[in-house]
Amino acid sequence: MEEKIRHHESSSRFSGMATFLNAPLVRDPILLDIALIGVPFDGGVENRPGQRHAPREIRNMSSLLRPIHHVTGVNPYDLCRVGDMGDIPFPHALDLEASHSDITKFVSEVHNACVVPLCVGGDHSISLPALRAIAHDRSVGMVLVDAHTDTLDEELGSRFSHGTPFRRAVEEELLDPARTVMIGIRGPRSSTEGFTFALESGIRVISMEEFTEMGVQSVIAETRRVVGASRRRR
Amino acid sequence: MEEKIRHHESSSRFSGMATFLNAPLVRDPILLDIALIGVPFDGGVENRPGQRHAPREIRNMSSLLRPIHHVTGVNPYDLCRVGDMGDIPFPHALDLEASHSDITKFVSEVHNACVVPLCVGGDHSISLPALRAIAHDRSVGMVLVDAHTDTLDEELGSRFSHGTPFRRAVEEELLDPARTVMIGIRGPRSSTEGFTFALESGIRVISMEEFTEMGVQSVIAETRRVVGASRRRR
Amino acid sequence: MEEKIRHHESSSRFSGMATFLNAPLVRDPILLDIALIGVPFDGGVENRPGQRHAPREIRNMSSLLRPIHHVTGVNPYDLCRVGDMGDIPFPHALDLEASHSDITKFVSEVHNACVVPLCVGGDHSISLPALRAIAHDRSVGMVLVDAHTDTLDEELGSRFSHGTPFRRAVEEELLDPARTVMIGIRGPRSSTEGFTFALESGIRVISMEEFTEMGVQSVIAETRRVVGASRRRR
Amino acid sequence: MEEKIRHHESSSRFSGMATFLNAPLVRDPILLDIALIGVPFDGGVENRPGQRHAPREIRNMSSLLRPIHHVTGVNPYDLCRVGDMGDIPFPHALDLEASHSDITKFVSEVHNACVVPLCVGGDHSISLPALRAIAHDRSVGMVLVDAHTDTLDEELGSRFSHGTPFRRAVEEELLDPARTVMIGIRGPRSSTEGFTFALESGIRVISMEEFTEMGVQSVIAETRRVVGASRRRR
Amino acid sequence: MEEKIRHHESSSRFSGMATFLNAPLVRDPILLDIALIGVPFDGGVENRPGQRHAPREIRNMSSLLRPIHHVTGVNPYDLCRVGDMGDIPFPHALDLEASHSDITKFVSEVHNACVVPLCVGGDHSISLPALRAIAHDRSVGMVLVDAHTDTLDEELGSRFSHGTPFRRAVEEELLDPARTVMIGIRGPRSSTEGFTFALESGIRVISMEEFTEMGVQSVIAETRRVVGASRRRR
Amino acid sequence: MEEKIRHHESSSRFSGMATFLNAPLVRDPILLDIALIGVPFDGGVENRPGQRHAPREIRNMSSLLRPIHHVTGVNPYDLCRVGDMGDIPFPHALDLEASHSDITKFVSEVHNACVVPLCVGGDHSISLPALRAIAHDRSVGMVLVDAHTDTLDEELGSRFSHGTPFRRAVEEELLDPARTVMIGIRGPRSSTEGFTFALESGIRVISMEEFTEMGVQSVIAETRRVVGASRRRR
Repeated sequence: MEEKIRHHESSSRFSGMATFLNAPLVRDPILLDIALIGVPFDGGVENRPGQRHAPREIRNMSSLLRPIHHVTGVNPYDLCRVGDMGDIPFPHALDLEASHSDITKFVSEVHNACVVPLCVGGDHSISLPALRAIAHDRSVGMVLVDAHTDTLDEELGSRFSHGTPFRRAVEEELLDPARTVMIGIRGPRSSTEGFTFALESGIRVISMEEFTEMGVQSVIAETRRVVGASRRRR
Repeated sequence: MEEKIRHHESSSRFSGMATFLNAPLVRDPILLDIALIGVPFDGGVENRPGQRHAPREIRNMSSLLRPIHHVTGVNPYDLCRVGDMGDIPFPHALDLEASHSDITKFVSEVHNACVVPLCVGGDHSISLPALRAIAHDRSVGMVLVDAHTDTLDEELGSRFSHGTPFRRAVEEELLDPARTVMIGIRGPRSSTEGFTFALESGIRVISMEEFTEMGVQSVIAETRRVVGASRRRR
Repeated sequence: MEEKIRHHESSSRFSGMATFLNAPLVRDPILLDIALIGVPFDGGVENRPGQRHAPREIRNMSSLLRPIHHVTGVNPYDLCRVGDMGDIPFPHALDLEASHSDITKFVSEVHNACVVPLCVGGDHSISLPALRAIAHDRSVGMVLVDAHTDTLDEELGSRFSHGTPFRRAVEEELLDPARTVMIGIRGPRSSTEGFTFALESGIRVISMEEFTEMGVQSVIAETRRVVGASRRRR
Repeated sequence: MEEKIRHHESSSRFSGMATFLNAPLVRDPILLDIALIGVPFDGGVENRPGQRHAPREIRNMSSLLRPIHHVTGVNPYDLCRVGDMGDIPFPHALDLEASHSDITKFVSEVHNACVVPLCVGGDHSISLPALRAIAHDRSVGMVLVDAHTDTLDEELGSRFSHGTPFRRAVEEELLDPARTVMIGIRGPRSSTEGFTFALESGIRVISMEEFTEMGVQSVIAETRRVVGASRRRR
Repeated sequence: MEEKIRHHESSSRFSGMATFLNAPLVRDPILLDIALIGVPFDGGVENRPGQRHAPREIRNMSSLLRPIHHVTGVNPYDLCRVGDMGDIPFPHALDLEASHSDITKFVSEVHNACVVPLCVGGDHSISLPALRAIAHDRSVGMVLVDAHTDTLDEELGSRFSHGTPFRRAVEEELLDPARTVMIGIRGPRSSTEGFTFALESGIRVISMEEFTEMGVQSVIAETRRVVGASRRRR
Repeated sequence: MEEKIRHHESSSRFSGMATFLNAPLVRDPILLDIALIGVPFDGGVENRPGQRHAPREIRNMSSLLRPIHHVTGVNPYDLCRVGDMGDIPFPHALDLEASHSDITKFVSEVHNACVVPLCVGGDHSISLPALRAIAHDRSVGMVLVDAHTDTLDEELGSRFSHGTPFRRAVEEELLDPARTVMIGIRGPRSSTEGFTFALESGIRVISMEEFTEMGVQSVIAETRRVVGASRRRR
């Protein structure tokens, strides 16, 4: 079986059905080490919607990628079994919190099968239900590369919009702020409360300005220091 | 005051702040006969979202329109007071039914001031809360020009999606099916239940095929016959 | 098995892997009545290439189509088994005639399984190898809706470009010109030889101008008259 | 010489330098019957500029056209000598009236060589200087297919904007209104004065609404009747 | 009144009429510290026009910006009164020099009210009339970040095109070359006369190549040195 | 004659027929030092075709470039005679190897006239026939700036696709690997054989990662060292 779970070497990359990274379509996570999961959902976004279409478009584009790195010569598909599990269904797509539950349920099944879930597409609100799936029994660290900290308390009358997931995750003890680093923060906000929460909770925030001063190597070292920090069990 | 509620004759139409049809921005409906209302909401749409941006883009484009018709010579802005009232605010934009309530509330205020509300933008689900505002005390007729009848019972787990508003409106006795005509229906569906409801409730459905056979003049005559049918109840 | 070969009723049409018309992906033609076949090839085109990408893009767009016609109420997927067989592989994609052979071979297997092949995408040169697959043992009639007759003798130094397939097909006795009708011809040419061949071989050419004069119903009647003309030979 | 003034039959139409309709580039009008002249000027336009780029883009697109009509079999390049004379230079491109003079001067040279000038590109204000070149000694009739009558008295503080050329042309007795027909007029205006001038001067205005009612054949007949009306003067 | 001159905190930034930076629309400069002024004019541009549409599009985009900087925590709208004064009207939009006068007149009123004018949109020729408004009584220094020095003597037959404003400004003693720095110059030219004028007049020109060598901090220091230099009164 | 072979100083760069860099159209190479040659061919490309349209589009864009460098003040058109020789014709455009022969033939004529040929447009496979034209009698060095080494042995069943030219060129002793440097290599591949060939043949490959570490000046120095290395005559 494992033989079949390999990167598909199509002579023409644009040919056939697109999958994430041209990985095989595998519905059963038990056959995989890493599961690529499409999340066609944007019910938590404030401004420009359309992330519901992201999984399909990312499949289209990423299927053109070839596997072997030009410097290391490594082919990741030789190291582990990677598959595209298709998209999470959203039978209640117009209901934000019900859809978040659907994400948690799907990702939990993958996580419980000891497979690494890798969610693709969807607005940033989906990070919270994904964390609920993988961190329900112990808080995790996180490396976030983003323009915003996404630690607002409320946005558009909701505590679950795309500007709030990491505040909820800290409150729900899914995320360990002491092992969390946010890199490249550069987006202005309408209030300071999101920044304040991130800093006061102990998250290491590296703004774009600080990133430029530190340089890539120092940021990597700092990131390793933070995420490797003490791991509190609840 | 009336003098000021006129079409703005800018020498360059692309200049200045865009309003619907280049009409004056008037916050108080009492000054108007017809109120143009932006509805930047797309929380009820299934496939391509983005209608939340429609009011702004329709303002941009429609502000280029000039007022005097080339055949009739009529300037509608001489006949009545038309104004752009801005956009309905959506403090709970991620909640479909709460947002529908916000629409009903805003449009009711316009309607209660004896002003004709004209909603622009938003996905088709907004028709239901608009009808709730203007037809709460007696059912109305309707002329719909659309590809679909939008009379599904449920879609994406919701009874209030953009595929359902006219079924709800009939059920809530906002819409009088005997005085309702739907013109240009041409979109296939996943089930027949929407078509069945429209026909069984007594709505006059003119498909695109029938439209082509009848011709424009006959469709107009038929439309007048249907919407003029008297019906008193409640 | 038949149960599984049905139209996939996804609540969100943009979700999951795109297939032609949202039909199931079926690799074995024996399970089908109609096989949708992607032909990602444009090695025969003169001007704008890119038809190699057409199968994928047509899958994306056509997967949004819903199955039940709004007037007839017919669901074609209830009437026969339709499936997407994926794309024809092109191991010699830079060689026009070798690729034509690959098309003939793939389509022949479908045709020999008594399944109707429906080729999607690719430049117009692919019509010749498709006809070779289905008409090798007796000539067939054809209804072509196109701007050009595609009956040049040679183009760009090749007898197999996208401007030549129906001349070759008549010469190879794949196409019976007496039962062939070409509708909507409207494209100017650099020489008259293509028009001359079509007319002299007995093909019924209905130009766009004639189409407009005749009207849709008359063109349909004429088309039936032509393609229904009996002709036994070989 | 005449041999050389023919349509260039390039095997690949997108190859080489683009000219209007793929006609030869001929700087001397004496070699031509019809001169195609690029007018890269948009200094008279109100809203969307960019017509200065039109000659180049129309060369690009029109060079793809092939010469022989699919029904008549006529090749116009066999009937007369057609050439692309390049673009009119605009040494004072930021000065509307000076640029109009440059157009008149260039087109006059072509006209005086007894060659038919065909101006391509530029905003609609260029019609006036072109008419000054060809009608300075006797007024001409005109068939205009346009959305507007372009008979305003003044626009943006100028009597020579793109909304005014045919009023000026009537006033300057370049255009004979009794032999002028304007077809397809459908654009609303900020005032009625343009319509009024057109009608009162005796121009035959066929609005889009009238066009639809009359049908194509009747419009052609009416057009012939109008432009054929004899009028000798001056 | 001051209370009202604040940044508008709309929950959805794309909602309502767009203004520059989402600042309030304020017609009277006396209420402001900084006036944002739209200049929908491109009558001085050589190649790609369309800057007349820039104010509207910049309003659309900039209204999405949020006010509080992610590092400094500063909200500029707490520090001073900023408003959008709408667009300068151009009653003679097709006349370059008349339009320049309209700009000077509008900006002068703002400047004379001791308000800082900030012009948005329009081609680069508008810099000259803006300088005439604010520097008519004493020359000013300038920090320019641009690809070109815009110091040609004449372009397209005009001394007021978008390639000439800073030569005119030096000649009219609006600009003090000793306190002027031009940063990032990288555009080739058809002649050397523009570069020569800039250098000979004493302007400090920092090409893109020099910028890269110096680094951001040194360029800032050099810029401060130049613009802080001696201020000659006429 | 030389006087005429100069950069055309059009006042409006978008005016008239576009040529590469606005250079004069010169059909005879004997008049030139550097010949710009369009290669409208993409029959060797795997994924996105369209390079056949590149010469025309590059003419459009490059004709906007002005000649005098802003720092050096050098006008290359004063130093040598540069002309646009038009496009190579492809009478067998659907045949990859025949078209390669047509390229070699055209470029040879330029090369044999002691003129430097500069090919523009076409997919990367055209490098091989160009090298055959200029290096048939002695191998040359090369500086390649690209994402890939293009040293595959075979692709899409062909030894002459756009992924193979430099392997063929080494094998045919057109290219001297000891004097060849490939800069900026960063594209992953489906196999390691292309990288292996490049390295084993002695080509100096500077990956994007190495480029970043070395810096621009060191890469230039290294490039000079490599291409200046010993020149073996066959």
